[in-house]
Amino acid sequence: MGVVPGPELLARARLLVAPELSASLVREVERITGRDAEPLADEVPGDGPLLCVGAALPGPVRAADRLMWFHSVNAGTDPLLAAGPWPAGALLTRTVGRMGERIAQYVVGWVLAECQAVPEYAAQHARAEWRRLPTELVAGQTALVYGTGRIGGAVAGLLRSCGVRTVGVGRTAWSGTPPVGFDRMPSGFDRVIGVDADAEAEAEAEELAGARWVVGALPLTGATEGFFGAGRFAAVRGATFVNVGRGATVDLAALEGALRGGGVRRAVLDVLAQEPAAPDAPVWRLPRTVITSHSAGITADEDVAQDFAACWEAVRAGRRPELAVDVGRGY
Amino acid sequence: MGVVPGPELLARARLLVAPELSASLVREVERITGRDAEPLADEVPGDGPLLCVGAALPGPVRAADRLMWFHSVNAGTDPLLAAGPWPAGALLTRTVGRMGERIAQYVVGWVLAECQAVPEYAAQHARAEWRRLPTELVAGQTALVYGTGRIGGAVAGLLRSCGVRTVGVGRTAWSGTPPVGFDRMPSGFDRVIGVDADAEAEAEAEELAGARWVVGALPLTGATEGFFGAGRFAAVRGATFVNVGRGATVDLAALEGALRGGGVRRAVLDVLAQEPAAPDAPVWRLPRTVITSHSAGITADEDVAQDFAACWEAVRAGRRPELAVDVGRGY
Repeated sequence: MGVVPGPELLARARLLVAPELSASLVREVERITGRDAEPLADEVPGDGPLLCVGAALPGPVRAADRLMWFHSVNAGTDPLLAAGPWPAGALLTRTVGRMGERIAQYVVGWVLAECQAVPEYAAQHARAEWRRLPTELVAGQTALVYGTGRIGGAVAGLLRSCGVRTVGVGRTAWSGTPPVGFDRMPSGFDRVIGVDADAEAEAEAEELAGARWVVGALPLTGATEGFFGAGRFAAVRGATFVNVGRGATVDLAALEGALRGGGVRRAVLDVLAQEPAAPDAPVWRLPRTVITSHSAGITADEDVAQDFAACWEAVRAGRRPELAVDVGRGY
Repeated sequence: MGVVPGPELLARARLLVAPELSASLVREVERITGRDAEPLADEVPGDGPLLCVGAALPGPVRAADRLMWFHSVNAGTDPLLAAGPWPAGALLTRTVGRMGERIAQYVVGWVLAECQAVPEYAAQHARAEWRRLPTELVAGQTALVYGTGRIGGAVAGLLRSCGVRTVGVGRTAWSGTPPVGFDRMPSGFDRVIGVDADAEAEAEAEELAGARWVVGALPLTGATEGFFGAGRFAAVRGATFVNVGRGATVDLAALEGALRGGGVRRAVLDVLAQEPAAPDAPVWRLPRTVITSHSAGITADEDVAQDFAACWEAVRAGRRPELAVDVGRGY
């Protein structure tokens, strides 16, 4: 799980920041930690424990065996963890920022835009055509949200504000008490199904068949790679699939089959296994699909500064930061 | 205000239904009232008080001076009231249905679609182009909602679920107590400004200048015709204007000026003074505007049946229906 560094280590730590951080963000991190920043690069400076802020951990820093704490400017830490074994004992924290809120607005924006026929009305307007197009009231429909953490919970909460019945799918089913691995009850769900329980597989298939929306908000781990495959898509009966988690959680060939077969009505993909998609990538030719260039959950400088400051305060107080990553679990 | 008919009148009333009602809706209205329906047309049948269900009141029925109660299948009763003086003592009720909910989803759908660049991403997808487009987090922005009744309140409530600060503009300011003319507090507003109070004009102009969204949800009355004119639009600094009320509340020349001048960023118009708009109508050439063919607040048969049944129950119990229209005020 990574060790929360004690005061003596924290006092001695060198601050290394990635070159892509803006000057104002670097100043803010220097202010929070009360020390000057050095570049986080292939060259490992001097001695002493290392506190790094950035997106990626350079190999030599990883190998130096002096990493005390890495704060990720991103929410998804799978590239960091996939690049090699995580240095033993090193704390990993991440930036979530207003990502849950942003991603929730992205999902609800695309959901309601489909219900309100936004692209179709825009096209009709361009033809100066007055004609009532079919629209849908999202209230009363069902959405399955895969991922019951901060992001899935925020998505579900906003969908529920629109009257949608929300079913979460997490590792473990729960009803009335916080699920395993969560300190508090994820909000926004009317029901949560666990994928680990065989007994729940039927419930999941039934909910998939009745759902109008299937939202992927899963982190990428060994257990979620290709998670949305032919089996799951075969259970879908006319839902639109929205992926805001990780691209590699989707088997694109299976998605294509479900789109061509009509089981999946439309797809909105913010994430792909290979980003950016090349102009000739086959993914652009999926029917009834829109790809949005990994824009749903952007993190702003203020998000990084705020989340890093919260982690710093926790560590100084000897507490484990809420934004600490379980490196074994992967998020 | 119209008189709630007593049991004796109600028992004798003939039921007239407009020919445009579906057969299943007519059967439902017959079931609710326990009598057979006759056609609501220019010919006025027999004698006895008249209970009519439809969209318009034929002149001879209006003139017969036997109208006891008219239930409108629409929410907007301005065409009914504009067609001539309302028969003295006749009760007028209306169908609101899930209109507040539908219109709220329409508004939030177009708002979030703009924030998420839905049309732009759809166009970019068609070019197989991977590029992050600017998006906006609607949370923290301000929306002015004109109209603080059921519909304005539903719009504001859903916007507030998305973190938007909502300012209502109604006939009368209020804070903490229900405004004049309302039985209960309209929900969804962080603040309500009254247009009747001169002292509030400055507050309204300030809020217009700070607003990202200006939503019209006004009924058409003598006081609201051309309400959104050059004066109001001049105060707008970059807001998008969404009209879901009545088309004639907007001075289109003033809106065009504000769009061309940049004060109004975009416009989404569900309603026009002349509907349908002809293919050569100038309104199609407004810059950065989408027209959506009066589709935001459709009423379904089930809405009419449900609201009429509620009115029927109230009248049978000697109560004034919640959906009764104040024919003097116009809604």
